[in-house]
Amino acid sequence: MKVIDIVNHGKNSQLVLAEKTIPSPKEDEVLIEVQASGVNRPDILQRYGLHPPPKGSPDHPGLEVSGLISEVGSQVKKFKKGDKVIALLGGGGYAEYCLANQQLTLPMPENLSFKEAAAIPETYFTVWNNIFRIGKLKSNENILIHGGSSGIGTTAIQMSKQFGANVITTTSNNDKLNKCYKIGADFVVNYGNQDFYEEIKKSKYNEMDVILDIVGGDYTNKNYALSAMNARIVQIAYLKGNLCNIDLSHIMRKSLVHTGSVLRPKNLEYKVAIANDIKSEILPLIGGGKIKPIIYKSFILEDAAQAHDLMKSGKHFGKIILTKE
Amino acid sequence: MKVIDIVNHGKNSQLVLAEKTIPSPKEDEVLIEVQASGVNRPDILQRYGLHPPPKGSPDHPGLEVSGLISEVGSQVKKFKKGDKVIALLGGGGYAEYCLANQQLTLPMPENLSFKEAAAIPETYFTVWNNIFRIGKLKSNENILIHGGSSGIGTTAIQMSKQFGANVITTTSNNDKLNKCYKIGADFVVNYGNQDFYEEIKKSKYNEMDVILDIVGGDYTNKNYALSAMNARIVQIAYLKGNLCNIDLSHIMRKSLVHTGSVLRPKNLEYKVAIANDIKSEILPLIGGGKIKPIIYKSFILEDAAQAHDLMKSGKHFGKIILTKE
Repeated sequence: MKVIDIVNHGKNSQLVLAEKTIPSPKEDEVLIEVQASGVNRPDILQRYGLHPPPKGSPDHPGLEVSGLISEVGSQVKKFKKGDKVIALLGGGGYAEYCLANQQLTLPMPENLSFKEAAAIPETYFTVWNNIFRIGKLKSNENILIHGGSSGIGTTAIQMSKQFGANVITTTSNNDKLNKCYKIGADFVVNYGNQDFYEEIKKSKYNEMDVILDIVGGDYTNKNYALSAMNARIVQIAYLKGNLCNIDLSHIMRKSLVHTGSVLRPKNLEYKVAIANDIKSEILPLIGGGKIKPIIYKSFILEDAAQAHDLMKSGKHFGKIILTKE
Repeated sequence: MKVIDIVNHGKNSQLVLAEKTIPSPKEDEVLIEVQASGVNRPDILQRYGLHPPPKGSPDHPGLEVSGLISEVGSQVKKFKKGDKVIALLGGGGYAEYCLANQQLTLPMPENLSFKEAAAIPETYFTVWNNIFRIGKLKSNENILIHGGSSGIGTTAIQMSKQFGANVITTTSNNDKLNKCYKIGADFVVNYGNQDFYEEIKKSKYNEMDVILDIVGGDYTNKNYALSAMNARIVQIAYLKGNLCNIDLSHIMRKSLVHTGSVLRPKNLEYKVAIANDIKSEILPLIGGGKIKPIIYKSFILEDAAQAHDLMKSGKHFGKIILTKE
């Protein structure tokens, strides 16, 4: 089968087309004929050697796919050959075929295309886990989502709104700002020409209950300063850097919780709990047309390097997808 | 009645003996004839204007007392005149009399003196709340308690040990180090001549599940670096400063939770929940001789300024108490 592999991990890394043997499913696995695969920022970090695949996962990148069941392991009862599915992977989605644990494989929503459905697993699992399971967002609370135009951001805006929160978000230009409003944001700051701290502080949403942060760096202490009593800040990336200065008095005075997570290295039990939530809480909302993956652009698998270049450029609004053809 | 009041809040603050009217209990309050009053670091912060009394509490300091019920409010059924009690206050413990909410007043353990019992409310409430309610310490987990020789520290060591944790602590000299071992610590670092990070890292307790920190400053990122997966760091003071540098990668990679709290401004419901835990979980341990407040020195009420000077010197091991006579 064709796969996209990483060579020369580090700043000169390259994505290359390679041939690997189609793997065979273990008893609790399914083999999926990949139709589309989501591109995620951790895939780029993996090229730098910063986000290694967990033990037992393939070396080639790709955390989420949509496709058709091609073969099932001996203990798999809920899927059969030909079923349309989506799956969360430890790696290996940039390929014609991939293995997935049956418990991390879900039926594909009927109203979505393969391209749209491929945007769900890594992104929706990450957003659900960090905003709802870890951040414990409740209706009528204020949530600040940094980077509202990313795959994570566009999903987080829609999902938070569906669950009744007031959604505040930051993005880099006025075109993206308007798009954030269109998908449900209540208040958007263009950080390209405004200071998000100042703008939010003088808005009617001046204190945040939950902050989903992918930025880090000097955003960190501004997040603290915008936090309400008992706020939860969930760190899922640090595009402006992992080193920062903070003021501990915010943490104490506000009983603030600063936490974070990385999904990929978590154990199966942890991921299955999220999968079960996605099935019961989110797939019905997708099926009912209340939430929809927003696809910015797709590339064929062979052009994965162009997809990464686009993600690095930050020009996209929504997800970038690789397709079979 | 005699009280110790603060004049000239700020760096030239003074503690002075003053006269105030004995207050009358509201329907859910008791009037306590104070026998002993605990000295706490927030009392010193209050002199600098940094830890103001919550609305409705007296201006003069003092967060915990032992004494005799002198009068009860119209709705108070569980106490009568003459009962020996301990109580958590919003302020006003440095006095001959004080008011306390009946729900934050507990029967005094029979095996303790007034001097010992006065060490319980603020200190034990704070330790219980931060280590067990917020930090969720479980048996067999590793806890690091910075400042093991303080009132908070000596209480935290004993309580954590009673609940089956491995107790690691830091203190400033070898005399205190030996005393920390005597009250139950499993591993003690003398930070006067050793780096706590290096010593703990090479010990058999090299990863912490819970850290109770009163230090802040450059301890903060060392705490992060010593944290195990899913660790909880609870900040309850920052003697080395509130501003610090951190590395967010620890928070993400370890799903670390950095949080904290200040007890004084919390509402009644919050404090009552702790009081109920103290009554059911801790008073029996005190009654059974398993945990005991460690008193370093007591002063008569009039000498409160000397008590503060001792606390500021850091020479004490355990609690400093003010007594009626």
